Amino acid sequence: MDIDQQIRIIRRGSVDLINEDDLRKKLARGKPLNIKLGCDPTAPDLHLGHTVIIHKLRHFQELGHRVTFLVGDFTATIGDPSGRSETRPALTPEQVSANAETYKRQVFKILDPDKTVLDFNSRWHGSMGAADFIRLGSHMTLARMLERDDFAKRYREERPIALHELYYPLLQGYDSVAMHTDVELGGTDQTFNLLVGRTLQAHYGQEPQCVLTMPLLEGLDGTRKMSKSYGNYIGIDEPAADQFGKTMSISDNLMWRYYELLSAKSLDEIAELRRQVADGALHPKLVKEELAMEIVTLYHGAEAAREARDGFNAVFARGGVPDDAPTWLCQAGDASAPAVFLADSGLAASRGEAKRLVAAGSLSINDEKWNDALSPLPAGSYTIKLGKKRFLLLTVK
Amino acid sequence: MDIDQQIRIIRRGSVDLINEDDLRKKLARGKPLNIKLGCDPTAPDLHLGHTVIIHKLRHFQELGHRVTFLVGDFTATIGDPSGRSETRPALTPEQVSANAETYKRQVFKILDPDKTVLDFNSRWHGSMGAADFIRLGSHMTLARMLERDDFAKRYREERPIALHELYYPLLQGYDSVAMHTDVELGGTDQTFNLLVGRTLQAHYGQEPQCVLTMPLLEGLDGTRKMSKSYGNYIGIDEPAADQFGKTMSISDNLMWRYYELLSAKSLDEIAELRRQVADGALHPKLVKEELAMEIVTLYHGAEAAREARDGFNAVFARGGVPDDAPTWLCQAGDASAPAVFLADSGLAASRGEAKRLVAAGSLSINDEKWNDALSPLPAGSYTIKLGKKRFLLLTVK
Repeated sequence: MDIDQQIRIIRRGSVDLINEDDLRKKLARGKPLNIKLGCDPTAPDLHLGHTVIIHKLRHFQELGHRVTFLVGDFTATIGDPSGRSETRPALTPEQVSANAETYKRQVFKILDPDKTVLDFNSRWHGSMGAADFIRLGSHMTLARMLERDDFAKRYREERPIALHELYYPLLQGYDSVAMHTDVELGGTDQTFNLLVGRTLQAHYGQEPQCVLTMPLLEGLDGTRKMSKSYGNYIGIDEPAADQFGKTMSISDNLMWRYYELLSAKSLDEIAELRRQVADGALHPKLVKEELAMEIVTLYHGAEAAREARDGFNAVFARGGVPDDAPTWLCQAGDASAPAVFLADSGLAASRGEAKRLVAAGSLSINDEKWNDALSPLPAGSYTIKLGKKRFLLLTVK
Repeated sequence: MDIDQQIRIIRRGSVDLINEDDLRKKLARGKPLNIKLGCDPTAPDLHLGHTVIIHKLRHFQELGHRVTFLVGDFTATIGDPSGRSETRPALTPEQVSANAETYKRQVFKILDPDKTVLDFNSRWHGSMGAADFIRLGSHMTLARMLERDDFAKRYREERPIALHELYYPLLQGYDSVAMHTDVELGGTDQTFNLLVGRTLQAHYGQEPQCVLTMPLLEGLDGTRKMSKSYGNYIGIDEPAADQFGKTMSISDNLMWRYYELLSAKSLDEIAELRRQVADGALHPKLVKEELAMEIVTLYHGAEAAREARDGFNAVFARGGVPDDAPTWLCQAGDASAPAVFLADSGLAASRGEAKRLVAAGSLSINDEKWNDALSPLPAGSYTIKLGKKRFLLLTVK
């Protein structure tokens, strides 16, 4: 695959690539690159937000590069050495190892296990001596470290920063030196730390790594980031039915975002789906269902996905739109007035019948009674129910 | 010896003792205390300014305590890891060892070799791992470290501070933990670092060390600190004649300071000398000569000291005051007018003869011609010469 195509795939859904020229140079050599993702060795319980980066690693794997998951076990086994924080107890090597296994089980649903290395930074930090530590510190100034948002904030607010905390970003950056990393991935909140790795590699005589940051995935509400604490998440280990139902609940806009960040479909395939929806050839509900199927299949298999879909539609059908409801597309305006689209789509025999049925209270739009036959609906997707048996999946453009 | 007496000896000449209550508690146990002095492993070429602290160690030895010279070889063998400073090349272990031998040769002129331990902090720092380093850093906040004068200044002036530099005071402080130090000595410019040791010992569950700071010794000019770069120093390895002559050149005031800080004489003996000089029983020149003898004897032996004194006096005598010149003390005022003290001391036969001789240009005071017989001299010490053969060592109170 040529470099432009690779760059297009790599950039898909990303926020920042620092920088593209360097990455092109690395790719131009035609050799597999070392891709690194650091992860915390605390007990993982991943939701889809976490998988955005793992899907990106999958892209790199598909492009033939080498992916290493780096478990940051070194500092975890120290815990909070000041003993002030109860939330950071030291982990035993056994706990780290068990957590890594859980992590593997979860991420190997997305990544190819044969092309994924799991490594632990205690391998090199454990044998670092105080002299190595001193040398490491000599490559970074206090002023630069205090540019990191959280340090800057705490310093400004006169909250204590212990000296060892200043070293943590260096240790993380040194991982890239030890691993000869070509590209390191992270969330946008990790940019500072990832750039430390880039700096340190230069100091240690290596070609600096490229940094690729991925966005925080919006949660089901479409506004805040996906997070357990906001309750707007889809967990990897959640039952298939929950995953399916939660996916079906997102907005159409968010659906495209999820496609970009979480789907194995190519950008071209996604563009085609968008086109069909825009043309009215496909109702968004069906596209969303396809996304939900893909997500559940990934974590529970195709069989479980089908069952989840059927279960969901059975419940929904009690509402109840059948699987084979016809779809209809119209322009916002005259054509999107209920009397018009009901007649045009054939759901009602005529505009006159449509008006009478609406006046009689037979129309529901998105499960709500609707009495106005003449005002046009604004652009959007609607589930239309007329009487008890007539359904329409309507898209107003 | 009771604790009050020990405290008096320990406090002699010192600037700060942090704090006396803690030291009294330690002394009250009646066991030998661990006394630490850290020293730089660069090539030593000591002058008397450096020996102020070594004399203080001697006091501790005489009180029965254990003295350890700690050579800070660990960081020296790293040098300047950033490679920015040419003035801090890494020392090889052989260089450190050779420098330590030179150091020993110099300090063992003051200290009792049998009661002095020479240790090297690479012994424990060399086997510290990164985890130990992290823990060490957790005991100190950035804010406190930035209180150190030089860090504060550089940070304010936006000059770079590398992260490892923040760790150096911690490493030095950890030495006290490793050595279970009871009292650490240092110059007043070291107070911050010495207090770090006190803090760390508490964090590591030890009784905190006491900190005793010694002043910077004034140089021969009596104003600026003794320093090679000011040319106002007496070097330990300088020839006996130079040491003697330089000592004789200092002011009377500075002489008492040197006695306090550099002499093996007890405070009581020094007080007695002061009393005799104040009474006019001793001319300050003789007391200064005794100090010069003590200094030269320490570094070159009694024989060399006698030769230096004789050589000095032979040169001075060409000026020339004989060894056995009489001394005279008077009050500032009427009695300190040349006509009066020349007659009263018997150097002139009468006030009349004194006036005539002064008018004839026969009087020199401190080697300068003096024509005023009637104005009193202010308080001070003077070498009086009348004609070619009559001398007087005069003290005006």
